[in-house]
Amino acid sequence: MPNTALDQAALSQLFLDAHTHNAWQNKPIPEALLHQLYDLLRMAPTSANCSPARIVFVQSQASKEKLMPALMEGNRAKTMAAPATAIIGYDLHFYDQLGKLFPNAPDAASWFNKDEQTAFTNAFRNGSLQGGYLLLAARALGLDCGPMSGFDNKQVDELFFAGTNVKSNFICNLGYGDPKGVYPRNPRLSFDEACRIV
Amino acid sequence: MPNTALDQAALSQLFLDAHTHNAWQNKPIPEALLHQLYDLLRMAPTSANCSPARIVFVQSQASKEKLMPALMEGNRAKTMAAPATAIIGYDLHFYDQLGKLFPNAPDAASWFNKDEQTAFTNAFRNGSLQGGYLLLAARALGLDCGPMSGFDNKQVDELFFAGTNVKSNFICNLGYGDPKGVYPRNPRLSFDEACRIV
Repeated sequence: MPNTALDQAALSQLFLDAHTHNAWQNKPIPEALLHQLYDLLRMAPTSANCSPARIVFVQSQASKEKLMPALMEGNRAKTMAAPATAIIGYDLHFYDQLGKLFPNAPDAASWFNKDEQTAFTNAFRNGSLQGGYLLLAARALGLDCGPMSGFDNKQVDELFFAGTNVKSNFICNLGYGDPKGVYPRNPRLSFDEACRIV
Repeated sequence: MPNTALDQAALSQLFLDAHTHNAWQNKPIPEALLHQLYDLLRMAPTSANCSPARIVFVQSQASKEKLMPALMEGNRAKTMAAPATAIIGYDLHFYDQLGKLFPNAPDAASWFNKDEQTAFTNAFRNGSLQGGYLLLAARALGLDCGPMSGFDNKQVDELFFAGTNVKSNFICNLGYGDPKGVYPRNPRLSFDEACRIV
């Protein structure tokens, strides 16, 4: 059966009425919901199913405190208050998984690992796509998001990805937002400013 | 009112049952639907609302034929058949729009334009996030997607973004898919392979 548009309430929840949140209710995220979040986002497409995103969900007080010094001052208090903080990284050696992820092309790793620039470009592009999927999957599950890139990537890599080929991309607080922490909506570019039809 | 999870049908349409499409019904996409697509995706978050994505919707026969030589052989026939092909690019000079997009911080451009690497990283990260939003917004509107990175970025830039600071990121066919062109689902990484909770 062909798909039709989701109803207006769903479009509002995902896009039109959703806002970045900066204050959080004291309401935890059950571990099962983090699994459900990942089970949604992993299904959305990446190049040759390469799936480079690697995610650390920071929940414990001790791990939150470990993360704090790497964040810009203005991002600290709200991150301590969020029930979970996702560090979205990308694995520069993602191609080592392609035997499992893209079994119909046994040479798929060679499309990506021929040089560091190609590996980086594909890891960063697809890891960022998966970051976008995470944000919208969270909203689809009724969670609110507070994404941030105001932190020291190198420091986060040392703290959370030492000894791996994973690099941090961006960070996203997750939870149930307190509307008092929402800022007024900023303008967006019009269709004609950002798009054309040819 | 707090959000709750979307119903199972919506989660299936967005993530769980959605597939990349390779064959297309002969059913056009009205221009109003492309506007609706952009009006959804533009609302999802980017760093300081920087909104670097620039999109060309290739619909005419002449523009499709212009694009063809830049695509890998295996991507040509299906792209000719798709009712629309979105070229998702990112503007390396996105910071020139921040006066409009982030008016509460008059110095916001200086966060991004201090060097080329910083501008590139933020354009590519946020432009890719917006590409992910485009894919899921299309599915939310009942459209099917066929994303591709198998093309010559430099050639596409010369053909469609000459004289600008926009660079192509990836390409996505849009339309109403023919299920006969769907490949079997590839495996995904498990939660424990891609995530941890700390």
